[in-house]
Amino acid sequence: MSLRAAERDYPGSFITLEGPEGAGKTTQVKLLSQKLEALGIPHTVSRDPGGTPLGKQIRRVLLKPGTYIAPMAELLLYQADRAQHVDELIMPALKRGEIVICDRFTDSTLAYQGFGRNIDRKTIEDLNAMATQGLTPELTILFDLESEKGLGRLHPGGHDRLEQEAIEFHHRIRQGYLTLRQEQPERWATIDATKALISVQEEFARIIVERFADRHPKLKDLA
Amino acid sequence: MSLRAAERDYPGSFITLEGPEGAGKTTQVKLLSQKLEALGIPHTVSRDPGGTPLGKQIRRVLLKPGTYIAPMAELLLYQADRAQHVDELIMPALKRGEIVICDRFTDSTLAYQGFGRNIDRKTIEDLNAMATQGLTPELTILFDLESEKGLGRLHPGGHDRLEQEAIEFHHRIRQGYLTLRQEQPERWATIDATKALISVQEEFARIIVERFADRHPKLKDLA
Repeated sequence: MSLRAAERDYPGSFITLEGPEGAGKTTQVKLLSQKLEALGIPHTVSRDPGGTPLGKQIRRVLLKPGTYIAPMAELLLYQADRAQHVDELIMPALKRGEIVICDRFTDSTLAYQGFGRNIDRKTIEDLNAMATQGLTPELTILFDLESEKGLGRLHPGGHDRLEQEAIEFHHRIRQGYLTLRQEQPERWATIDATKALISVQEEFARIIVERFADRHPKLKDLA
Repeated sequence: MSLRAAERDYPGSFITLEGPEGAGKTTQVKLLSQKLEALGIPHTVSRDPGGTPLGKQIRRVLLKPGTYIAPMAELLLYQADRAQHVDELIMPALKRGEIVICDRFTDSTLAYQGFGRNIDRKTIEDLNAMATQGLTPELTILFDLESEKGLGRLHPGGHDRLEQEAIEFHHRIRQGYLTLRQEQPERWATIDATKALISVQEEFARIIVERFADRHPKLKDLA
């Protein structure tokens, strides 16, 4: 179910990708972008935290070694980055009528900081709404992967080397994603990220064509 | 009216100073701090935005020339600075039992961004509450000054050289402060900042002694 034009104040389409590290989102979106490019379909691929000049400076602050950062200050810095990302990059592209595909967005904050780190969900939701000025994805694709498999891909030495705490953290994140999907089933689509790269890519393209070909007719050539 | 110990979870006292630029807050707090120092009264003087290492890095980002900053991103960056300031500096000093005097705090954001720049008040209040983790000043002293006088002090060439827009902005800020004071009269005290430096200092000391001498007995020697 995609939003009708009357419900959006821009002609573009906003898609976000979610899932654990190791699920292959980055590779998949790069492949898809090449195809959209070849078909001449205007689109913007981005990732959150965002790549704006301000965002890069904020990232430098967040990653500077040796500086103690209070948890709430960290959350606010990430949301400042997101506010800039929406204002400077995502919303202008949507207003130009592009398909915007964003690798991680507000659901990552809910899954990682909320479900993962037990920060109050209402606080995160309020901040998400402020930073995005109410912009929500029309479609969110979950690249789903059992926690152990995702960690296994990132740490090929086997997950026996990972601490139990890390595994439980990643379990909470996956459960978080599944909970969010259950709450808004019409917004979410799920891809089994354990499948072969080419199958995942086909399904990724199929989902986007199915939802947005009416609005962006050239998408039909993707299928 | 100061909070009783049962309503605070720290033994210190939290005082904030508000008012326009040019009202003399910085000079006054410096003088008072010297007296508190001489009397051996443990205290911390700070200013918001805060002087933590993270805050200094955030300030550098905010002041970097040539970077476009979206209004919401700016607000979130200031609140990240405040969250760090409360966590790293203000709350630890209050827990050590000190008198903490902070030059500007949450009311400045309401007065300048809310009343001055017309950013939604509820948004600012929600952010203030998150950044401070609910910490509110027990006493807020307004160094009150008619807008034209404050501007005249900062721009001795006379306010005829200032644009009308700037004057109206400062009017809105003063009205904002007066509104906030009206809403919580028990929290606010007002000093007429047009008086002579020494009279202002005496009144500043008198207000603090009156409200906090029970909790910090050495304060009586200030009067």
